[in-house]
Amino acid sequence: IFDLCGDQKRLALLLNLEARKMTADLQAALSLCEEHEIAAFVERLKNERRIEILRNIDRQKIVGVLFQLRSKIPQDDFKKLLAELEPADIADLITTFDRNERILFFDLLSDEMVADVLVELKSSVLREILQDLPLRKLSRAIKYMAADDLVEILGDLGEAEQNTILATLHPDQREEVLALMQYSEDSAGLIMTPETYSMPSNATVADTRRALTQLKDFDDPVIYVFVTDPDSGQYLGAVPIAKLFIAPPTKRLEELCETDLLTASPDEDQEEIARRFRKYDILVMPVVDENGKLVGRITSDDILDVMREEADEDLAHFVGAPDIEAEEESPLIISRKRLPWLIVTMVTGLINSVIIKSMMDVTTIDAIAIFVPAILAMGGNTGMQTNAVCVRGIALGQVKVSNLLSIVWREIRVGAMLGMICGATAGLISWSVIHVTGAQTGAIPPAYLALIVGVAMFAAMTFASAYGGLVPIILHRLGADPAIAAGPFVTTSNDLSAAILYFITCVSMLHLLHIS
Amino acid sequence: IFDLCGDQKRLALLLNLEARKMTADLQAALSLCEEHEIAAFVERLKNERRIEILRNIDRQKIVGVLFQLRSKIPQDDFKKLLAELEPADIADLITTFDRNERILFFDLLSDEMVADVLVELKSSVLREILQDLPLRKLSRAIKYMAADDLVEILGDLGEAEQNTILATLHPDQREEVLALMQYSEDSAGLIMTPETYSMPSNATVADTRRALTQLKDFDDPVIYVFVTDPDSGQYLGAVPIAKLFIAPPTKRLEELCETDLLTASPDEDQEEIARRFRKYDILVMPVVDENGKLVGRITSDDILDVMREEADEDLAHFVGAPDIEAEEESPLIISRKRLPWLIVTMVTGLINSVIIKSMMDVTTIDAIAIFVPAILAMGGNTGMQTNAVCVRGIALGQVKVSNLLSIVWREIRVGAMLGMICGATAGLISWSVIHVTGAQTGAIPPAYLALIVGVAMFAAMTFASAYGGLVPIILHRLGADPAIAAGPFVTTSNDLSAAILYFITCVSMLHLLHIS
Repeated sequence: IFDLCGDQKRLALLLNLEARKMTADLQAALSLCEEHEIAAFVERLKNERRIEILRNIDRQKIVGVLFQLRSKIPQDDFKKLLAELEPADIADLITTFDRNERILFFDLLSDEMVADVLVELKSSVLREILQDLPLRKLSRAIKYMAADDLVEILGDLGEAEQNTILATLHPDQREEVLALMQYSEDSAGLIMTPETYSMPSNATVADTRRALTQLKDFDDPVIYVFVTDPDSGQYLGAVPIAKLFIAPPTKRLEELCETDLLTASPDEDQEEIARRFRKYDILVMPVVDENGKLVGRITSDDILDVMREEADEDLAHFVGAPDIEAEEESPLIISRKRLPWLIVTMVTGLINSVIIKSMMDVTTIDAIAIFVPAILAMGGNTGMQTNAVCVRGIALGQVKVSNLLSIVWREIRVGAMLGMICGATAGLISWSVIHVTGAQTGAIPPAYLALIVGVAMFAAMTFASAYGGLVPIILHRLGADPAIAAGPFVTTSNDLSAAILYFITCVSMLHLLHIS
Repeated sequence: IFDLCGDQKRLALLLNLEARKMTADLQAALSLCEEHEIAAFVERLKNERRIEILRNIDRQKIVGVLFQLRSKIPQDDFKKLLAELEPADIADLITTFDRNERILFFDLLSDEMVADVLVELKSSVLREILQDLPLRKLSRAIKYMAADDLVEILGDLGEAEQNTILATLHPDQREEVLALMQYSEDSAGLIMTPETYSMPSNATVADTRRALTQLKDFDDPVIYVFVTDPDSGQYLGAVPIAKLFIAPPTKRLEELCETDLLTASPDEDQEEIARRFRKYDILVMPVVDENGKLVGRITSDDILDVMREEADEDLAHFVGAPDIEAEEESPLIISRKRLPWLIVTMVTGLINSVIIKSMMDVTTIDAIAIFVPAILAMGGNTGMQTNAVCVRGIALGQVKVSNLLSIVWREIRVGAMLGMICGATAGLISWSVIHVTGAQTGAIPPAYLALIVGVAMFAAMTFASAYGGLVPIILHRLGADPAIAAGPFVTTSNDLSAAILYFITCVSMLHLLHIS
C-alpha cells in the first residue's frame, strides 16, 4: 500500500505511524523511503526522536539523509546526530560537501570525532581539509589519534606542516610517532598497531587475570596475551585469551603459550604479510623486530585495507590509470597522471602507421591495410590475458621460476591453440570480407590474402602469449614489481609486434607463393 | 664465506655445523641455501633431527624442499615430517605433484590432515583429487571437517557424488550441512562459521566465566561472547571476552553487552559484507537470520578470501580471461573459456575492416587507412581507464547515481582534455608521418588529413570516456554486475565506435572543406 502513495501522502503516513508509536511498521515504511523522504520526515520530529530514528535507518542511506538535512535542522541537533554516527559514515558525508561546507562542518564535531574522521578520509580530500582546517583545531584533535594513524596522516603533508604538527605533540606521543615514521612505506611497521598486551612468561594465569582487570580502555578486543622473556624482554609466544578461563590459576604462561604463531618483521613488505594472512587464515600476527622484541601486532582487519590498496594498484597498472590508486579528484591532475601511457600508446600507433604504409608499398596491395585492426586487437587481447594470469601467479606467491615457467608454457599452448582457431576463422571471414567489399587484392588471389591474414593472426597471438607471460617473470627476477609492465605496456608492445609479424608474414608468404 | 663455496663444499659445511651443534650458524647457513641443497642436507640426517630442522626453515622454501625429498627418504619419516606442516603448505606441495603421486601422497596423511588439506586446495586440483581418492578414505576424512568447509567442497562435486558423501555422514552433521547448502552461492551464509559462543542475557559474568572453563576445543580464538534473549533466543548483542575479566562477577551480561555491532543476514551478498568489514574496520560480525536468531559469525580472515576472490573476478572480467577466477589448469578448458570474447573481438575487428574499406572507397585516399591503429588504440585505452574507475566506484559502494554521474562527468572532461592534447599531437605527428612515408593523400593536402586524424582522435577519446563510464552505471541500475561488461566488451565497442567516428569525421570534414 505504502508503495502506491504519493510523496505528500507518504510523509503523512510516516508521521501518523510515529504518532501512534508503531515502531516496527515505521521501520518497515522507512526502509522503503528515498533519502529525501526520510530527511523530510526526520526534520519534522523532536530532537531526541530524530536521533533515535536515524540510529535505526539503513547505513546505506544515512549519508544521503544527513546531506539533505544539513541546512534544515538546528546546528545543535545536527551536532548530536553526528555524535551518534560511525566516523567512516561522517567521512563519506564530508566527501560530498564543498570546501566551505567542510570547514563549517568540522566545527560541529568533537575533537575526538575529528581525529577519527580524518583517519577515514581518502587522501585527496584529506589534503584539502588539512590545508583549510585551523591548526589549533587540528592539533587538539591529534591528541586523540593513535600513533599509527597519525603517521598515516603526516605522510600526506609537506615537511613544514609535518614539523608544525610534531611540535604541538606531547613528547611521549612525538617519540612514538617518530619511531614509526622510520619504517618505510608499505612496510609492516606502518600497518601494525604499536599497542600490544604482553606479560612475562613466568607470570601465572592468576597474575594475568588480575592484570587484565586493570586494563581500562582498549579500542580493539584483546585476542591474545603475548608472552615475553622476563629477562631479555624477547617475544616467546601468545596465549589466546579464552584459554585463561580454562587453565588452572597457578599455571605459568610459558606452559600455555602457543609458539607456532607466524610473526612479521617491521620491515617486511605489507603485500607479503597479506599473502601470509590469507594463506594461513591468520587473525592476529605479532610483529617482532630484529632483536626479538615485540613491537606491535597486525590484525586481519588491517590487512583488508592492504588488500584493497593492492587490488587498486593492480587495476591502476592494468588499465594505465594511476589516479585510481592515488584517489585523485581533480580532472587536471587525473589527466596529467594518465597522459604518459597515452602518449606511448599514440606513438606506438603512429609507428604502426609507418609499418602499414610500408606494407602497402612493398606489396602494392592496398587491401592489406584493412585487416590490421583485427590482427592487432587479437594480439593485444591474448597478451593481456596471459599477462594477467602471470602477474597474478606471482602475486599469489608462486615465486618459484620453475612454476612460473610452467604457467607461461601453458599460456603459450593456449595462445597457439586459440591462434589456430581464430586464425582459421579470420581467414575464412576475411575471404568473405574481400568478396563483400570487393577490395582490390591486386596480383594475388583473395584466397591467398585470406591465408596471410589467418597465419599472421596465429603468429601474433602465439607471440603475444609468450611475451605477455615472460615480461612479468623477467621483471620479477630483476626485483621489480611485475605489475608495472602490465596493461598498456604489454598492449602497446603487442600492437607493435602484431603489426611487425603481419608485415613479416605477408612478405615471406608472398615470397613463398612466388607472387611478389 | 659460505656464499663462495661450491655445492659439495656447502653440504659438507652444513653437516659439520650440525655435528658441532652450532644451531644459530646452521640456521643462518640454511637460509642462504637453495631448496635442493637443504633437501640433500636433510636427507643425510637422522629422523628426529630432520623434523627439527625442517620446522625451522623458511616457509617459502618448505614446499620445494619436501618436493625434492619425496622419493629420497623413507615413507615413515616423510609421514612424520608432513604431520608437522601447515595444511596450506601441504596443499601447495600436492599441487606440484602429478595425479599418481597425489594419491600415493594422500595415503601418508592422517584423516584429519586430509580434511584440512582438501579445504585449502584450489578447485581444479580438488576436483581431480576427489575423482581419484577412494571414497572410503574421503568419507573418513570428512568426519573431521567443519560443516562450512564441507559445503564448499560439495559445491565442486556432481549431484551423484554429493549424495554418496552425504549418505556417509553422521545424521547431525548431515543436517548441519544441508542447512548451510540452502544458502545461495556468494552469500554470507556460506562464508560464516556456524559455531558461535553465546549466553543468555540474564547470565552473570561469573556464570559466563564458569561456562567458558567448560569450553574444551575451539579452533579459532573466541573474541566475543554473543548475548541472546533467554526467552526468544534472539540475538541481542556481544560482550568482548576481555571485558569479562574487568566486570564484577555479579553483573549481568545485558548490562555489559555492546548492541551496536553491525550484523549480517545469511542471504546477503558476500561482496557487500566485505565492503562493510573494510569500511568500519570490523573484526567479527554476527550473522542473524530473519527471525532474529544468531546463526553464525564471520571473522575478518574469512573476508580476506572473499576479497581475493572478488579481485580475481574483477581482473578476469577486465582482461576477458574467465579461467583466472575458475583457477583452471588445463589448456583446453582455458582456451574454451577465453574463446567467446576473442571471437567477439575478431568479428568486431573484421567489421572495422569493412568500415575502413568503405572509407578508402568513399574518400579515394588510401593513406587514410594507415592511421586507424592509433585512433583505435587511443579510444580503447581511454575507455578502459574510465571503465575501471567507474566499476571500482560502484564496488566501493558509491551506489548513489548522482555520485556516479559526477564521476562520469569528471571522466568525460578528463577524456576530452586528453583527447585535445593527444589529438593535436597526433595531428602534428601524422603530418610528419605523411611526409616521411610519402603517403599518397590524393586530392587533399597532408595538413588537412592531419587535421582529420587529430579531430577523429579527440572525438573517439571523448566518446570512449562517456561510453566506458555510462555502461557500468546502466548495468548497475539494471541490477547486473557492472564488471561483466568491463574489459573486452568496452574495448571492442570502443574500437568499433572509434572506427565509425573516424569515418564520420573524415567524410564530414572533407565535405566541410569542400574537397569531397
